[in-house]
Amino acid sequence: MSISKSQLKLITSLSQKKYRQKHNLFIAEGIKVVNELLQSDFEVALIFCTNEFKTSLPKAKIVRVSETELNKISSLKSPNKVLSLFKIPEDKPIQNSGLILALDAINDPGNLGTIIRLCDWFGISQLICSKDTVDCYNQKVVQASMGSLTRISIQYLDLKNYLDKSPLPTFIADMNGENIYKTNVPKEGILVMGNEANGVSEEIKNQVQHKISIPRFGETQKTESLNVAMATAILISEFKRDM
Amino acid sequence: MSISKSQLKLITSLSQKKYRQKHNLFIAEGIKVVNELLQSDFEVALIFCTNEFKTSLPKAKIVRVSETELNKISSLKSPNKVLSLFKIPEDKPIQNSGLILALDAINDPGNLGTIIRLCDWFGISQLICSKDTVDCYNQKVVQASMGSLTRISIQYLDLKNYLDKSPLPTFIADMNGENIYKTNVPKEGILVMGNEANGVSEEIKNQVQHKISIPRFGETQKTESLNVAMATAILISEFKRDM
Repeated sequence: MSISKSQLKLITSLSQKKYRQKHNLFIAEGIKVVNELLQSDFEVALIFCTNEFKTSLPKAKIVRVSETELNKISSLKSPNKVLSLFKIPEDKPIQNSGLILALDAINDPGNLGTIIRLCDWFGISQLICSKDTVDCYNQKVVQASMGSLTRISIQYLDLKNYLDKSPLPTFIADMNGENIYKTNVPKEGILVMGNEANGVSEEIKNQVQHKISIPRFGETQKTESLNVAMATAILISEFKRDM
Repeated sequence: MSISKSQLKLITSLSQKKYRQKHNLFIAEGIKVVNELLQSDFEVALIFCTNEFKTSLPKAKIVRVSETELNKISSLKSPNKVLSLFKIPEDKPIQNSGLILALDAINDPGNLGTIIRLCDWFGISQLICSKDTVDCYNQKVVQASMGSLTRISIQYLDLKNYLDKSPLPTFIADMNGENIYKTNVPKEGILVMGNEANGVSEEIKNQVQHKISIPRFGETQKTESLNVAMATAILISEFKRDM
């Protein structure tokens, strides 16, 4: 058995968010990521794999393919034995305790994937994304998050509205904010990180009282801004270091 | 005037380290990066640019090209008006004061570029690289460092030998090291970060007394390790936060 035309069409379509939402499916590739997803609560729909991939899944869910076929459907430079389709899980209720990370219009899939790994490391189980943040089921995000996706609850919503209603103290990363090293941060709260080019949107900035920043130690004003994933790492570390 | 065959051959060859060293040249692309290099101590050898790129360089150093030609020589998805060849500068004397970052066999050009930006932000002017660390004049490193390359002194050397001789206290990032949040770190010292897959090499680990780690807050042992650039960001921040 090999890949049918309709399966090929389906796989190709899933590179677009609208088709992921229509079919309620996303793609994960490679032994490591697929196995992590298989061992999680995520539900597998279909798996395309070479004979080298060992699995105890029911036969109806397995399509054995050649290396050449896998190359054809893969978006990786070095496809690794398996490409699978998983069902997009339903939203879980938002956890409103502990440290919550919120993202305002993060564009780059690699950044989102890295940030999901950071959440996993630092035990942040709730990630909130504005509706214009890149989709977490984008293939590049799935690959960059390397399985951490299975341990973080991610919810897309109207960020301004969510922050308006939340009782937790909110901190936004902002170039002109207070020096994070001199700020007393609480154990519970929401940290908002903004878009790569524009930072947090004005309407959210106006709404939130606590603005924090990572001081620049470099002598020159020419110094590049920190990448948003780097800044997120440093700020989360500051929230967590005294716990 | 357009690109000659020998120029095309030269540009192509510079994707390899041995030819960069032979010709003592490296490639930088795009208006932003090229302009930062032009405004620095780096010496430009030749510039290939479309008519849209304004420059006051002597005519002998400028080759005007069409968009099509630029596309042909560029390694970027979206070439941006200019590709230039700069001379690789001579090594400067090593600065043995303040916080020094040392890299042991970092492989990924994107990681090195990001780490160079981090150094720039945190005012770390000396970066030491083991000889098997990816070349900082690799094109992907140059683009990822976004001009920070002009402000950091980078030296490739025998890392074990360098650490042996250095009077500064040395700290290595190691999974089994002491919790960084509970470690008193000095203002002067060397922080050693290791290879993406294997960490710091055994022979350096055996040599160095201070091992530090970022504690994992996630509950599960499945949690992915932190990407090396993330870990570097968090550790540098810990060294710098009390300064």
